[in-house]
Amino acid sequence: MRALEWRNRKVRFIDQTKLPLEEYFIETDDEVVVAHAIKSLAIRGAPLIGIAAAYGFVLALNKLSENETPKRSSHIEKTHNLFASTRPTAVNLFWALNRMKHIALRALNEPLATFKITVLAEAKAIHAEDEEMCRTIGAWGAEALPNAATILTHCNTGSLATGGAGTAQSVIATLWEQHKLKHVYIDETRPLLQGARLTAWELKNLGIPATLITDNTAAFLMQLGLINAIVVGADRIAANGDTANKVGTYSLAVLALHHAIPMYIAAPTSTIDFEITSGKEIPIEQRSGTEVTSILGKQIAPHGVEVYSPAFDVTPNELISGIITEQGVLRKPYREAIASLKISSSKGRE
Amino acid sequence: MRALEWRNRKVRFIDQTKLPLEEYFIETDDEVVVAHAIKSLAIRGAPLIGIAAAYGFVLALNKLSENETPKRSSHIEKTHNLFASTRPTAVNLFWALNRMKHIALRALNEPLATFKITVLAEAKAIHAEDEEMCRTIGAWGAEALPNAATILTHCNTGSLATGGAGTAQSVIATLWEQHKLKHVYIDETRPLLQGARLTAWELKNLGIPATLITDNTAAFLMQLGLINAIVVGADRIAANGDTANKVGTYSLAVLALHHAIPMYIAAPTSTIDFEITSGKEIPIEQRSGTEVTSILGKQIAPHGVEVYSPAFDVTPNELISGIITEQGVLRKPYREAIASLKISSSKGRE
Repeated sequence: MRALEWRNRKVRFIDQTKLPLEEYFIETDDEVVVAHAIKSLAIRGAPLIGIAAAYGFVLALNKLSENETPKRSSHIEKTHNLFASTRPTAVNLFWALNRMKHIALRALNEPLATFKITVLAEAKAIHAEDEEMCRTIGAWGAEALPNAATILTHCNTGSLATGGAGTAQSVIATLWEQHKLKHVYIDETRPLLQGARLTAWELKNLGIPATLITDNTAAFLMQLGLINAIVVGADRIAANGDTANKVGTYSLAVLALHHAIPMYIAAPTSTIDFEITSGKEIPIEQRSGTEVTSILGKQIAPHGVEVYSPAFDVTPNELISGIITEQGVLRKPYREAIASLKISSSKGRE
Repeated sequence: MRALEWRNRKVRFIDQTKLPLEEYFIETDDEVVVAHAIKSLAIRGAPLIGIAAAYGFVLALNKLSENETPKRSSHIEKTHNLFASTRPTAVNLFWALNRMKHIALRALNEPLATFKITVLAEAKAIHAEDEEMCRTIGAWGAEALPNAATILTHCNTGSLATGGAGTAQSVIATLWEQHKLKHVYIDETRPLLQGARLTAWELKNLGIPATLITDNTAAFLMQLGLINAIVVGADRIAANGDTANKVGTYSLAVLALHHAIPMYIAAPTSTIDFEITSGKEIPIEQRSGTEVTSILGKQIAPHGVEVYSPAFDVTPNELISGIITEQGVLRKPYREAIASLKISSSKGRE
């Protein structure tokens, strides 16, 4: 199952808000539909958002006709802004957008057909690189965690979140294939229940034994000695290793420290924002309170109650045992480890 | 609003599973209805369960007629077992049941009218003592936490959980009345959402400013420095101070330690189980997985997913800053502090 693909000059994706009860696919040649799907979380997961935005770029530029050559530049800018305004935290989004913009501007004066082929090739490259990245992250992670028979994970980091097997979930799947993994515990991940809805569905499809828990049960499992390691994804990593990920990740990191359980982040280097020196500079997206006060359309709290609903929290680097990237596992001190990546991973950045 | 009361020889209670969207009251003279309501969480909160079971005892014994005098003893035993099988963790339940059984057995040979008056008087005494206990816990707690301008709480510990103003919530209400409190943060408390459904509703009715959060957001609030103190209730406290409370409490205690935030338990001494030496001996009730996989009747997880859903977790005494009881605030070492309570609070125990 591919969460998103390029098919017949269109973007085809599964509407993740309808999972696991309904497997509903949307096919569109309209970039506005893709942008809206990112905003509404029908398309989600930091790497997949980047891929979706890249193909969305292609859809937008495919609308250009022969006599509009001078309009290309403003059209590129407009498309960049459309997608940049969808989700503020995931840095892969901006990384992919910058790659697309860069390649499009470089091909600005090419014939229209060549121009369109060039931007499509770049989007496909971003997708293919992501798929390969998932495979490599899985391999590095499995090597770093040979004794992780039981893993706790949070949110969704699988094929629904990436162009391949996932980030943290690729580590899980690789350990399972290598017969090292026995069991996965899945945080349901309120408010949008990506763990209960998506990860539980994906692990079931993969045949990996898993147990669903409410987020507030994780500490008790650790106290009972049932968790060997925690592996989660990331939405943005600062140059010092501070990591923004789905709200609840920081909570797990503190609990992991208390219980001496290794806490790993699994993310491609495109998740790293080399421009910011610490997590304090990461913008935290605030979600609507209705995502907390109602669940799948059912009101659960009194009307008018005030809600605080950050989509992400920031885990300080000192609480992270390692960052599993496609280039290997980064270890403390993270500033140095990350700086050594800079050149190779910033290709395509402006 | 009283969550439960004795009215016209019947027990009248609000069905807490229907809150906050519906205020639905049930009036019954059938103890089986009361026992079922405890089991299904229509009546909940450790102190209120004890009061409900006491009145349920009265309902059962009211069914005895003049010529059944020799049956009284077996009827008492049967009623005790009916309520003892409803919820295994809350010790107040057993404490109240033992008080009722004790008084009923003592009045075994009284004329029927006297027998019935005696057991009703005992149930009313349990209720009245609980109401007074709430008031006193609030006063002791407010004295112990003069600088707690912002409090985080979990689950529901208010008038819906007790015979009066609550336990932890009585501390909150008392601080508010004394103009010391500015804001309350409420954990929604999955799976049954007592925070979102009940505490948010009660604090709104009391006019206390409150913000609802998902359970996994608590750590982030602590990191941001927004929480001055955590105050929660208890379902059973061991003789060494280890405390069983709604799942997620242990998580908050570990997070509180990491952020140097005081963590208080507020509970009547009837919550203390003097017979057990540590939390390891507290039985942990396992709830049905469907409470996690579906919310208010809406399925959220794939069918057939395995679920681990303990109703409670156990917080080791060393993580607790103080236990606020109606006799004062207990401090470390808890074994000694609790032992000194034993005589006064065990009245009525067998």
